[in-house]
Amino acid sequence: MTASQEKPLIRSIDVIRKKRNGGELTRAEIEAVVNGYTSGEIPDYQASAWLMATLLKGMTRAETAVLTDTMLRSGEVLDLSDLSARKVDKHSTGGVGDKTSLVLAPVAAAGGLAVPMISGRGLGHTGGTLDKLEAIPGFNVNLSVAEFRKVLETCGCAMIGQTAEIAPADRKLYALRDVTGTVESPFLICASIMSKKLAEGIDALVLDVKTGSGAFMKSEKDAVYLAELMVETGERMGKKMAALITDMDQPLGRYVGNALEVVEVLEVLRGDGPEDLRELCLELAAWMFFLGQRVTTIEEGKQLSAKLIGSGAALETFRKMVALQGGDARAIDDAKRLPRARHTLDVPAPRSGYVTAIQCEWAGTACVILGGGRERKEDAVDPAVGFVLHKKVGDSVVAGGMLCTVHYNSEALGSRAQTMILESFAIADTPPVHKRPLVHRVITKSGEKN
Amino acid sequence: MTASQEKPLIRSIDVIRKKRNGGELTRAEIEAVVNGYTSGEIPDYQASAWLMATLLKGMTRAETAVLTDTMLRSGEVLDLSDLSARKVDKHSTGGVGDKTSLVLAPVAAAGGLAVPMISGRGLGHTGGTLDKLEAIPGFNVNLSVAEFRKVLETCGCAMIGQTAEIAPADRKLYALRDVTGTVESPFLICASIMSKKLAEGIDALVLDVKTGSGAFMKSEKDAVYLAELMVETGERMGKKMAALITDMDQPLGRYVGNALEVVEVLEVLRGDGPEDLRELCLELAAWMFFLGQRVTTIEEGKQLSAKLIGSGAALETFRKMVALQGGDARAIDDAKRLPRARHTLDVPAPRSGYVTAIQCEWAGTACVILGGGRERKEDAVDPAVGFVLHKKVGDSVVAGGMLCTVHYNSEALGSRAQTMILESFAIADTPPVHKRPLVHRVITKSGEKN
Repeated sequence: MTASQEKPLIRSIDVIRKKRNGGELTRAEIEAVVNGYTSGEIPDYQASAWLMATLLKGMTRAETAVLTDTMLRSGEVLDLSDLSARKVDKHSTGGVGDKTSLVLAPVAAAGGLAVPMISGRGLGHTGGTLDKLEAIPGFNVNLSVAEFRKVLETCGCAMIGQTAEIAPADRKLYALRDVTGTVESPFLICASIMSKKLAEGIDALVLDVKTGSGAFMKSEKDAVYLAELMVETGERMGKKMAALITDMDQPLGRYVGNALEVVEVLEVLRGDGPEDLRELCLELAAWMFFLGQRVTTIEEGKQLSAKLIGSGAALETFRKMVALQGGDARAIDDAKRLPRARHTLDVPAPRSGYVTAIQCEWAGTACVILGGGRERKEDAVDPAVGFVLHKKVGDSVVAGGMLCTVHYNSEALGSRAQTMILESFAIADTPPVHKRPLVHRVITKSGEKN
Repeated sequence: MTASQEKPLIRSIDVIRKKRNGGELTRAEIEAVVNGYTSGEIPDYQASAWLMATLLKGMTRAETAVLTDTMLRSGEVLDLSDLSARKVDKHSTGGVGDKTSLVLAPVAAAGGLAVPMISGRGLGHTGGTLDKLEAIPGFNVNLSVAEFRKVLETCGCAMIGQTAEIAPADRKLYALRDVTGTVESPFLICASIMSKKLAEGIDALVLDVKTGSGAFMKSEKDAVYLAELMVETGERMGKKMAALITDMDQPLGRYVGNALEVVEVLEVLRGDGPEDLRELCLELAAWMFFLGQRVTTIEEGKQLSAKLIGSGAALETFRKMVALQGGDARAIDDAKRLPRARHTLDVPAPRSGYVTAIQCEWAGTACVILGGGRERKEDAVDPAVGFVLHKKVGDSVVAGGMLCTVHYNSEALGSRAQTMILESFAIADTPPVHKRPLVHRVITKSGEKN
């Protein structure tokens, strides 16, 4: 009975066994594992066994919320309560040609919201916001918290990378998941994303959960499951949430590659740009305004967004942010100041017909092969390379006509990317029967919409 | 195409993912993980993720055989082909009061078989053969392979602990399983047991798979599953195999504790001893003789075993082995030469009636509390302590009559064990309706028997 007055000791081995047997962990048990691992008291091999058991046995909604909260509170949470504007952010699960963040932050800020956006880098076939921003000469994504706050206060938005203070438990766990086959769990993905996003001190979050051949979640069912999990987790923590399940079965827009995507962002901010990209930006911005209580309907939000683009206010906000974060603002009006590849190479259509599919993961991998993305976290990125699509799904093509132009710096890599992009195109005699919608559905607190 | 002539590289992360997704691993994949981990190329955290995925997703029979073979071949395999006698061993999954090995080795050896027995120590509530042997003053279980072979050649049996050369992959993997909640997998248990046993260079193996409240596999279903797995794995590797599913719902025999169990072994070798222990020894010895082709029926094997005990030949073989392994052979005729606890304490029956159950894991834990077993591998064991049961399931008792006598060296521990043993007894007005059989069933190549 000597131990009766001591704090009950939670042994990590018992927590692993409980999860392995399909049990629901208590807050104290989750905290013991996550905090113990972050502080170094629990060894890697126990954490990885727990991660694998969690991936295979799953978590309840309550466990997922506690895991998110524990990871969030492992580090600093920004206090932006002194800003009068509502703080709203958007997060995408990642895709090919997905440059919406660079449009949304200035649009939302120009419309009176504050957007404290902390983003990631590209990995595998998907691109990353930080790499795109760094294609603008001088742009600094490594601001201190004080500098970040100053940019945010001055122009309404600021875009940086994860700092050492934000969710250190996630950084350590993510590195372990990466090497132990435990990345692909909706529960662990949810906690990883949400712990970082909620550390931004936001009031509301719009999620863009991609589905299709270029998405992390290939099937719509998996995308919806993750979206519902993240919406519920955010709501349990007092945030306004919405998730749009959007299409990533072909690249978004026409430009893929870091500097090339900045060019397309500027087109959209000037009221131009390809229809799919423009439409998705308006839709996502509308949800940001809706959750940020600037509008009362999504339609009103889209109109406001279009107005802020049409007036040039959004472009002006972008210009200010670029300058405040050390970037060369002249590049905004003069694309020649952005990095450009030394060579281009066309991809001709092998036959006449209609484009019925563009295998999106292959297309994204072609950009990685060119040097525009990374296979490993430590790889450097060439901002200049990538490709411009001239044809997308549903378009008619003639034999020998241009499908795509590859921008490359190395002859051998250009040729490999050319082959890969050619192979990603499917061309048939008739156009595709079903056109995939841009927004598959919307998930909010009150259930499904759209 | 530059890699076309290189050996294909198997990445551990891909093997983990494949097993996580429920895939069947190839020989090359299993070898890559097991040999890579044993050599230190694959880190603990990847091995533990693979172990957890294996525990939760299972293995096919083919994978289990390959894993066993890979672990076996990670170390030395004894070559006893120059011995003319058939080499037969017995392995038990462990229980409380299970001292059959000490009887079987000399009986089988006296009957013309060679028994090269490599055993383990007690852990948790179960006892271990090495601890029992070491209760005999001077008995050395740490022989070199050359010394082991010499004892075996001289008296037909030898009993030692696992050497550093035997299945090093198992030793490393077992230590990791112990701290990562990955012990309880029939596939991993099978590979661990069989890799060590097959390293003995045997022709045949009898398995004693325990079931009941004191067994590792509490349910008969789990015990049968493990037994079938081990029988099939051994047969795939060219060994004659049989598994007996035997009862461990109460302690086997009447004596529990290392030196006390040696006393009971000597009783059985003198043709005396409790009926359940004697009967199980005859049954297991008969199967050893049957698989070792010394007899053509189990009944004949039992008669041969009884004869070898009745003639004193088995006791003589035991005496020889004890002397050859440095033990004090005089202890065989004079139990006072064995360690004895300083105090004894009776456990009286709290009421009259019939014993309907003895919770066997609690009874085993009472012995650990006394110091007679270990909670951790590094704990030392007191050979003298334990208890003697005066009543077993089905026996009638009167209030205040003796259920058990506790042998202890520490007052406080004696009292705790007394309470625990008392709580392990269930006493009711009427005897138990169903008597559990000693041998539940037998599993051999040709399917179930008995």
